[in-house]
Amino acid sequence: ARPRVGYFFTGKTGSELFTEKLKKFKVREYQSLPIVVEEDVSAYDAICAMFLEDVGTLFVTNHKSHLVGVLSRKDLLRASIGSKDLTSIPVHIIMTRMPNITICEPEDLLLDAAQKLIEKQIDGLPVVNPAEDGLEVVGRLTKTNITKALVELARDQHI
Amino acid sequence: ARPRVGYFFTGKTGSELFTEKLKKFKVREYQSLPIVVEEDVSAYDAICAMFLEDVGTLFVTNHKSHLVGVLSRKDLLRASIGSKDLTSIPVHIIMTRMPNITICEPEDLLLDAAQKLIEKQIDGLPVVNPAEDGLEVVGRLTKTNITKALVELARDQHI
Repeated sequence: ARPRVGYFFTGKTGSELFTEKLKKFKVREYQSLPIVVEEDVSAYDAICAMFLEDVGTLFVTNHKSHLVGVLSRKDLLRASIGSKDLTSIPVHIIMTRMPNITICEPEDLLLDAAQKLIEKQIDGLPVVNPAEDGLEVVGRLTKTNITKALVELARDQHI
Repeated sequence: ARPRVGYFFTGKTGSELFTEKLKKFKVREYQSLPIVVEEDVSAYDAICAMFLEDVGTLFVTNHKSHLVGVLSRKDLLRASIGSKDLTSIPVHIIMTRMPNITICEPEDLLLDAAQKLIEKQIDGLPVVNPAEDGLEVVGRLTKTNITKALVELARDQHI
């Protein structure tokens, strides 16, 4: 007989049901806006952009607006103790550059992106769309986004 | 009649069962080791400690080894563009100081700590034990720890 609870046994445990839900979260649902600088901008101006926009990761693009590098707070801090004049160092000297950049796409699973952040020990991933001859930056995915996702999820479940 | 599945209806949905599990995670199960500097160390030496230990947040203690401040990469980057000589600036000038520091304790819920990280927009929390006349730093909880918790959880569920 069916139990009178509007709830039927599916052969799955509670955790399995949850992880099916978690498994469906996409990067595009949690990503932030990307903050982008051009490759000939100075390290000093990049640091200013980082403070103005209050982000920990900047993406560097070429004249075609395609992704060529990533700048973390760590990269800029390293440059700042290694050099006297940050206004004379262009960011393309100190950035992490293609093909050493770990990327993700809007339709990727949030969990896969989270795993990349942990495995590569990085703060943020550029969210990109492949264009004809390069990568167009459409978002930024950081550990803040992952932490927010977990907090919101828990709140929705009325913990 | 009982279903023959070793599984009984509890009146809870799958998500509720999961969140009960998530609700039990404690800070102490996920925290990292704290990296500590004394308050009269220079900003330059603090930056070096940050790179040597590969962390994004340092905790500052007084001569009694009690917590007096927190230093983020952002604090050090701000100091580095605002000053010519980082070796002459002690960290107590640029740190965030008590009582403006957000803390957590080992037995706190991981979710509560995650919520503090988001609400206060900070990278890491000191994990502290109250001592007789101050706070003893016993750990470091960051968005990396939260992201790792989520990734491990998902992996354990065989996603």
